[in-house]
Amino acid sequence: MGSPRAATEEDPGERFVIEAARAAAGQGAVVGIGDDGAELPDGTVVTVDTMVEGVHWDERLSPADVGFKLVATNISDLDAMGARPSWAVLALSLPTPLDRDWVTEFFSGFAEARSRWPFVLAGGDTTRSPGPRVASLTLAGRAARTCLRSGAAPGETIWVSGELGLAAEGFASTRTRPEALRALKRPSVPAPLGARLAEEGLATAMIDLSDGLARDLTRLCRASGVGALVDPFVLPTRSGLAQAVAFGEDYQLCFTASPSRRALIESLSSATGVALTAIGTTTPEPEIRLLGHHEWPSPQFDHFTGCSS
Amino acid sequence: MGSPRAATEEDPGERFVIEAARAAAGQGAVVGIGDDGAELPDGTVVTVDTMVEGVHWDERLSPADVGFKLVATNISDLDAMGARPSWAVLALSLPTPLDRDWVTEFFSGFAEARSRWPFVLAGGDTTRSPGPRVASLTLAGRAARTCLRSGAAPGETIWVSGELGLAAEGFASTRTRPEALRALKRPSVPAPLGARLAEEGLATAMIDLSDGLARDLTRLCRASGVGALVDPFVLPTRSGLAQAVAFGEDYQLCFTASPSRRALIESLSSATGVALTAIGTTTPEPEIRLLGHHEWPSPQFDHFTGCSS
Repeated sequence: MGSPRAATEEDPGERFVIEAARAAAGQGAVVGIGDDGAELPDGTVVTVDTMVEGVHWDERLSPADVGFKLVATNISDLDAMGARPSWAVLALSLPTPLDRDWVTEFFSGFAEARSRWPFVLAGGDTTRSPGPRVASLTLAGRAARTCLRSGAAPGETIWVSGELGLAAEGFASTRTRPEALRALKRPSVPAPLGARLAEEGLATAMIDLSDGLARDLTRLCRASGVGALVDPFVLPTRSGLAQAVAFGEDYQLCFTASPSRRALIESLSSATGVALTAIGTTTPEPEIRLLGHHEWPSPQFDHFTGCSS
Repeated sequence: MGSPRAATEEDPGERFVIEAARAAAGQGAVVGIGDDGAELPDGTVVTVDTMVEGVHWDERLSPADVGFKLVATNISDLDAMGARPSWAVLALSLPTPLDRDWVTEFFSGFAEARSRWPFVLAGGDTTRSPGPRVASLTLAGRAARTCLRSGAAPGETIWVSGELGLAAEGFASTRTRPEALRALKRPSVPAPLGARLAEEGLATAMIDLSDGLARDLTRLCRASGVGALVDPFVLPTRSGLAQAVAFGEDYQLCFTASPSRRALIESLSSATGVALTAIGTTTPEPEIRLLGHHEWPSPQFDHFTGCSS
C-alpha cells in the first residue's frame, strides 16, 4: 500500500529490471519483454505472472481465489496477445511446516480456472519459503495471428470490454455489490475474446487492463507512437471515474480498431455475450487525454499489484 | 538448515503438493511432474526451478553466482531429459526499495551462464517481495529423443559424470579447494552431455544429481522399477563418502546404460572432456545398496535446497 503515484507513470524499479534483463540477454535475444507476453520464433506465445502474499493478495482472498486468479491473470495476458493457451508450469514457494489445507484449496481454485480456460499443467517446482507464499505461473500458447501493443494508428477507435472499476469497488469496501467482490477475487477474464479479435483481424493493438485504463492505455499508446482522447462519460462503469481508470485488476481488454470495423466488433460482442464499448479515439498527438479533465484521476488507494505489470 | 533425514527419503510436503497438482490438473493433463522436466505433446521439453534467498543461497553466493546458478540448475534439468535449451522466462520477486546493484550483478551472472548454454530470454515478470528475494526460471527446449528416469532395466551399468561431493565440500568449509567453492557457486553442469547421451541412444535412464546420489539414484530406480548396487570405492570423489552421496548440488549426471555401450560411452567422455565413471549395476531386487554398507550415509548438514528436487 504505497503512496499514490501519477496515474500514467511507470514503476522506475520495474523499468530498471527490464533494462538489466535486456542487456544481459544480448542483442536480439529478448523478443517480448514489455508486452503482455512474448512471441518466440517457433510461434509459441508465452507469459509469466507471479502472485506474492501480502503484495498481490491479502486475507480477503481465499486460497482458492488465489489459485483461480493466478490462472486468470496469465490467461488474460495471453488472450491480450491474441493467443490461446496450451500448457503451463507452476512454481510454488511455501512456508514450512506445509499447510496442506492451503495447498488443497489453492489447487481447487486453480483447477476451476483451468477447466474454464483449458491447458495442460505440465510440471512445477515446489520450494520452501521463509517469507510469504509466492506462486508463479508460466503459460504458453499459440496465436494464429498475434496482436501486440504497438499496432495502433491515429484515428482508430479505442474499445474496452466488460465493466471497469469493479475490482476497485470490491477492493475499497467489502459492503458492496457481490459482482464487485467477485471481480476482485475471481476476475471474469473475457478470453478467448482477445484471440478472436486477433484471429479475425479486428484489433490493431491490444492490452489487458491489469493496472487500470490510465496506465495500460498509456502503455499501448507509447508502444504504438500515438496519443488518445477518451470520453469519460461513455466509460462502462458504475463504480466512479477514479475506480474505472486508476486502479486496475479488472482484467478486461483494451484494444484499438479501424472505425470501419465497428459493426463486426458489435457482432462479436453479441456472439460472445461480452459488452464492448467504444470509449475514444487514437490521435497523432502523443498526449493521453481524458475529455474535460486536465489530468487523469490518481488512485485513492494502491492495489495489490505492487510493481507488477 | 533442517535436521538430517534418511538419505533416500522423499520430502513428504513436496510429495503432497505434487499429488494435489496432479489431482487439480485432471487426468492426462500432467505429463511430466516428477521427472526433471516435462515433455509436451508438441515435443517441447520444459522445466522450472526456483531459488529462494535464505533457502537456496546465503551470503556465500554473490548476486552474480545466484544468476549463474539459476540458469545452470535449469540447464542441468533439461540436459538430464536429453533436451537442448531454446527459450526461457524469468520471474523475479525483489524487496523495495530496489537494490539496483544486486539486479545488475544478478544479470551479469545470468548472462555469463546464458552465453555458455545459449537460449532466448523471452520475457519476465518483476514483483515486489516483502520477504526474501525469489527467482524462478522456466526453461523450454527440444529433444531429438528424450531420456526419462524410468527407462532403466536390471543388469545395466550405472554411470556418473564429473566429480561428486565438490559442492558439499565447498559448503562445509570456505577453507577448502578452490574447485569445491566454485562447484557450490558456479556448478560445472556438463551439458550438452546429457543431450548427446540421449541423442546417440546410449543412456536408458537419466537424472541430474541435485540432491545427492543416494536420493537421486533412488528416484531413478523407483521410476524404472529396478534396484541398484553401487561400489563406494570407485565413486569419483576426493571429498569423502557422505559428501559424495548425501548432499547434492553437484549437478552432474547419473545415468544407466547397457554394458555393451561401455566403449561408446568412454569415447564420448574423451570427446567431451567430461569424466564418466561406472559406479555400479542395476538389479532386479528393488533395494538401492551401497556395497559393504548397511545403509547410505546421512547428510552431516542439510544444504541450501530445502524441499526442492
